[in-house]
Parts: sequence; C-alpha cells; structure tokens
Amino acid sequence: MQLLKDRIRKDGIVKPGNILKVDSFLNHQMDIPFINELGKEFKRRFSDCPITKILTIEASGIGIAALTAQYFHTPMIFAKKAQSLNLDGDMYTAKVESFTHKKVYDVILSKKFLTARDHVLIIDDFLANGCALEGLIAIVRAAGASLAGAGVVIEKGFQGGGDRIRRMGVRLESLAIIDSMTEDSLTFRE
Amino acid sequence: MQLLKDRIRKDGIVKPGNILKVDSFLNHQMDIPFINELGKEFKRRFSDCPITKILTIEASGIGIAALTAQYFHTPMIFAKKAQSLNLDGDMYTAKVESFTHKKVYDVILSKKFLTARDHVLIIDDFLANGCALEGLIAIVRAAGASLAGAGVVIEKGFQGGGDRIRRMGVRLESLAIIDSMTEDSLTFRE
Repeated sequence: MQLLKDRIRKDGIVKPGNILKVDSFLNHQMDIPFINELGKEFKRRFSDCPITKILTIEASGIGIAALTAQYFHTPMIFAKKAQSLNLDGDMYTAKVESFTHKKVYDVILSKKFLTARDHVLIIDDFLANGCALEGLIAIVRAAGASLAGAGVVIEKGFQGGGDRIRRMGVRLESLAIIDSMTEDSLTFRE
Repeated sequence: MQLLKDRIRKDGIVKPGNILKVDSFLNHQMDIPFINELGKEFKRRFSDCPITKILTIEASGIGIAALTAQYFHTPMIFAKKAQSLNLDGDMYTAKVESFTHKKVYDVILSKKFLTARDHVLIIDDFLANGCALEGLIAIVRAAGASLAGAGVVIEKGFQGGGDRIRRMGVRLESLAIIDSMTEDSLTFRE
C-alpha cells in the first residue's frame, strides 16, 4: 500500500536491534484519518469474506482494529495479555513470545465472544516473528471458528514470521512488507 | 446518557468485589457503532473546547479513544503501562495504582507527542478510584499542556475517585455515574 510505504519512509525510524519505530502515527500517537485509510484497505482486500468478528491483541492492535471494524460492520474483540480479575474462568488461552518485550506471556479471550459460527479476521499492527499472530490463530481454532485471514499493517519480512504463517495456509495480507532495513535504508517487498 | 445506562442495565453484570463487567460491549468485545455514539456524545459535551489531542491509557481505553478522536479530528495518544524497548528515554512518567489488578505500575508517554501548545481531552472507559486519571492529569501538567477535561464512559461514583477529580478543578464528564450496585440492582446518579 503506497500511502503506508510513503509514511514509513517519511516518519519511521530504524533503531538498533531491528526495531522500526512508527510511534508518531501508528502505535503510540495514532493518526486517525490515516489509520482509517488502512482500515478501508483491509476491507477492500477481504471484501470477499463474510467476516463476523475482528480479533486483535492488546495493546497496540486495539485502535487499528477498532477503526477497521467500522468498515466490516462487525464487533471487535481483543485478546488480553494477562489474567485480569475482571475475566471469567471460561477462556481460550495461548502462549505468546514477544519480540519487543523479550518475554513469554499468556493471551486470553473469553469463550463468550468467539464461537464455531464466527468468521474471523485477525488485525494487528506488526508482524515480526509471528508469535502473537500464531497465538491468535490458535485461539480461533480452539473456538472452532473459521479463519478468513490476517491483516497486518507492517510485516518485517526478514524475520520470517509472515512466511511461516503463509506456509500454514493462512491468508495473510500485510499492507507493507519490509525485506531489509538499516538506519539509512528501507527495502520493501514488491 | 440514556443509551449507555440502558445498555449497562441490559448487559452489565455485577460481580463480587465491586466489579462491573461490561466486557460484552465495551472493553473485551467492543460494539463499534455503540461506542461511536459515545464518541459523538463526548464531542457534544466538549464542543466548546479547542482540543488538539485525545489522551488515553492502554489497554481498554484505546479503542474508545481512537473512535472518539474521529469526531474531534485530532490525533489520539495513549500512555503505556510499562517500559518498552521501543520507547525512547525522553518520556513523561507517572505512577498509577490499578483497582482491577491490585498493583502499582508506571505510566509513560513520549515527550514528542505532548507539548505546551496542546489542548488535551483525556478519555477512558472506567473511573473507579481515579488513580489512572490522576496519572494522566499529572502527565498533561508535566507537559505544560492545557487540560480541557476528562471524558469517562462509566464512573463508579461510590468509589469517590470522580468527586476527588472534580474537587481538583478538573472538568469531568462521565456518561454514566453509578452511585450503588449489587448483583440485583444498579442506581445511577441523576
């Protein structure tokens, strides 16, 4: 998606450790009209799918998924990263290893909100090693729901998670795929 | 706001420990068109204010704040709850005690995204003891920004946080204020 690639080139900052900071528009400060355009693009790419739920994971996926869900006219549900006193015992769980935070955590989703009748589109901001996405896919499968696919804003292609997800047979639509990056240059996959 | 009160009566569940679960529409599964109506109501109540930034705190405030920011035509920024490898050192910080999780955590916001030129509206899903809101107010003040006020979806009035915030001189608009609740009954403030 050219609008996104242009924005990453303009405002993205590459940091040591293969970190791409896009916090001025995507996941700390959010440029709302810009993200609405990403939501419309996800809708265009998955317009053939009878989506009933948008699924994401806290925290930085939530805003993007909420805005995107407007174009699918569906509820949005977000998996939570730790046991909360406000959650019932009846939950789907998966373990996820975070690239950013270098730790393993549990991801939970109340069983009330995802059933075998659902057609799910997973939305997230970043795909690096793919562990968060795999955790969400495991939850969709545990629910017996249909997985229409996953929509990711930025895939770090050189970390291999996206290609592994595709080999699982999951339809993955990344709006920008970065094949290499240094402090001076970014290469997008064509 | 009658639409919200009706929804809380219909779908809210009171749990032991003064917990009100509204996770079927507000903060685990999100009813997007419904939350857009809350966003329009915040805009109506703060239409006299020249807002430049919507500020919230991860995680459950993010979706509501993102949808609300559409009606203010401003960026949304969210404070994060712990040190992330992706954040620079140049941050505002505040300590917050969570009612839900019974612990104290650090809240951080990059200084890049809030300055003395900003007029800030804080948005959050719940107000109980008010600690999260006080942390966000401290961040706004540390930035030297103007605080237009705070918009909260559900205030648990009987926990006193909202009244303490009002006594600080902060304009607080809660769309529903609960003065008492048991498993059988809910009383809203008039």
